[in-house]
Amino acid sequence: MLKGLMQDRPLLISSLIEHAARCHPQVEIVSRTCEGPLHRCTYAEVHRRAKQLARALTAVGVAPGERIATLAWNGYRHLELYYGVSGMGAVLHTINPRLFPEQIEYIVNHAEDQFLFFDLSFVPLVESLASRLSTVRAFVVMTDRAHMPACDIPGLLCYEDLLAVQASDYDWPQFDETTASSLCYTSGTTGNPKGVLYSHRSSVLHSWAACAVDGLALGANETALLVVPMFHVNAWGMPYAGAMCGARLVLPGPALDGASIYSLLRDEKVTLALGVPTVWLMLLQHVAANGLQPAEELCLRRVVIGGSSAPRAMSEAFATTFGAFVVHAWGMTEMSPVGTVCNLLDRKSVV
Amino acid sequence: MLKGLMQDRPLLISSLIEHAARCHPQVEIVSRTCEGPLHRCTYAEVHRRAKQLARALTAVGVAPGERIATLAWNGYRHLELYYGVSGMGAVLHTINPRLFPEQIEYIVNHAEDQFLFFDLSFVPLVESLASRLSTVRAFVVMTDRAHMPACDIPGLLCYEDLLAVQASDYDWPQFDETTASSLCYTSGTTGNPKGVLYSHRSSVLHSWAACAVDGLALGANETALLVVPMFHVNAWGMPYAGAMCGARLVLPGPALDGASIYSLLRDEKVTLALGVPTVWLMLLQHVAANGLQPAEELCLRRVVIGGSSAPRAMSEAFATTFGAFVVHAWGMTEMSPVGTVCNLLDRKSVV
Repeated sequence: MLKGLMQDRPLLISSLIEHAARCHPQVEIVSRTCEGPLHRCTYAEVHRRAKQLARALTAVGVAPGERIATLAWNGYRHLELYYGVSGMGAVLHTINPRLFPEQIEYIVNHAEDQFLFFDLSFVPLVESLASRLSTVRAFVVMTDRAHMPACDIPGLLCYEDLLAVQASDYDWPQFDETTASSLCYTSGTTGNPKGVLYSHRSSVLHSWAACAVDGLALGANETALLVVPMFHVNAWGMPYAGAMCGARLVLPGPALDGASIYSLLRDEKVTLALGVPTVWLMLLQHVAANGLQPAEELCLRRVVIGGSSAPRAMSEAFATTFGAFVVHAWGMTEMSPVGTVCNLLDRKSVV
Repeated sequence: MLKGLMQDRPLLISSLIEHAARCHPQVEIVSRTCEGPLHRCTYAEVHRRAKQLARALTAVGVAPGERIATLAWNGYRHLELYYGVSGMGAVLHTINPRLFPEQIEYIVNHAEDQFLFFDLSFVPLVESLASRLSTVRAFVVMTDRAHMPACDIPGLLCYEDLLAVQASDYDWPQFDETTASSLCYTSGTTGNPKGVLYSHRSSVLHSWAACAVDGLALGANETALLVVPMFHVNAWGMPYAGAMCGARLVLPGPALDGASIYSLLRDEKVTLALGVPTVWLMLLQHVAANGLQPAEELCLRRVVIGGSSAPRAMSEAFATTFGAFVVHAWGMTEMSPVGTVCNLLDRKSVV
């Protein structure tokens, strides 16, 4: 076979954040934190801290291919873990905190997770499970020293302390793009949850699809609110696609109630929001109950709905009340995860 | 290394046309022909005929990796060659007919082309060169029996005859995605032209970029006029990207004068046009000389200009006279070829 080696380089997740830091360094990541206030940082800062994290993991002996677990909301530290863990060649295992504790125990042990990073919200959960998580070498709470909880988790580490001692000069390792990058367990099966393993290649290719006009059409002009959780099917791949195109990201943390989401949409001038119907139902109820005028107050142009079927009334409410177009998407955990996206062709739209 | 084999399949050019035929079967390819009239076909038909072509090439003993040359304008038969030749594992060598005849002779011999497919326009050129093209086993004129030229090319074959005897059931072979797919010689060098070899992988990845919002933003809602020639750097990858997203394609054949291009823009309701400044200059002169009102007559939304720098007056003329936004692009033959695309961020646009 005659080989053509045009643009020959592996498709690695680290290249996405490296690109964002170089081409979109000042684009914001806005996070609602467990500690309370909104937090603002940039792709350049996420990149720098992801490299510090990769160094920290290397320093404590994490080997390529080992699983590093998270129990966390959508936020900048979770984003740093997305890039730091996968980027160094380890596997990010995002755990769905809505599973039963026994299932969480099962999957941590089944995945043989070496470290567990978790948000402050999950201190009680981790406290109750820690003694039965046999492979976990250390527990890291994703906060700073001032907010460290008083709790019974043995040898608890502080995320910011881990990073603080690391320099940020780190060259992302280059390796085969089919290397595993992340792991989700799906409960959409019989019996115990089943692990679904993503590769660097699948995640980068999926990002291209998310940035395609006829895909999710994510681009540098969007401010995207990721209501879809980063603990489930990689938040529909948006943390990767966002860095690929330099979209501004808004991460709602633990506050998914109507009032919190509405204020983010308004104050952060969100143009694109992504989530499941149950969250949008809370938002629509909040808008109705308070007589709000979202079409006048918001910049929202599109709402991507997936996870389950959006009722027709929901699509209509977004169109009429918000002036936003609903893009219905469908996929599966083992599909990267977005499978189909319903955009309208010009000839089918009725404006 | 732990492998993740999510969505594991090679990125092959054949998968693009297979996808278009399945998902966008009725989308049109409109071609101005050397024979005269406009020709209309669909992605489903291009796919069917590309498979017939692949069978025909197999029948005459073309082996994977061998080079099959074209001297052809933008048209549906050239598109069939794009998919049929690369799809079967051979290498499509598109020759720029604007090169000096001695350069064409040099590159055909250097590439060791096995077959030469050419449009009727190039009969005199091929006639003059044929005896010195030492590796070419047969010359195929891209027309039907009724239009076969009387000429001195030994053993001249007719494209439609080749296809007519072939069934269309053909399974595209699956092979390593780094296999060479196409070949262009660039004259942008000192000395003899240099061959640039594309791979299936590079062509598919480049298509994703062309379909990205912040790339060329090609999508199923576009009717794209490819003035940029298919004989040069794969027409900026548009023949591949078009099939990826199901864009309607308009191929102007040999007629690049202002009147011909204008009538295609108008009659075919083109929304996106791509080409080099010299062609647009002819178009703008035609519009001015005839007092046309393109903003009222056309559906043109965007003009992609590359190849050389667009004068400021040209961008302004498209904006004011056509109501179309100029997207300036830059690239290199060895870059797949589009390197950068200048879209405006919301905050930079002045509407």
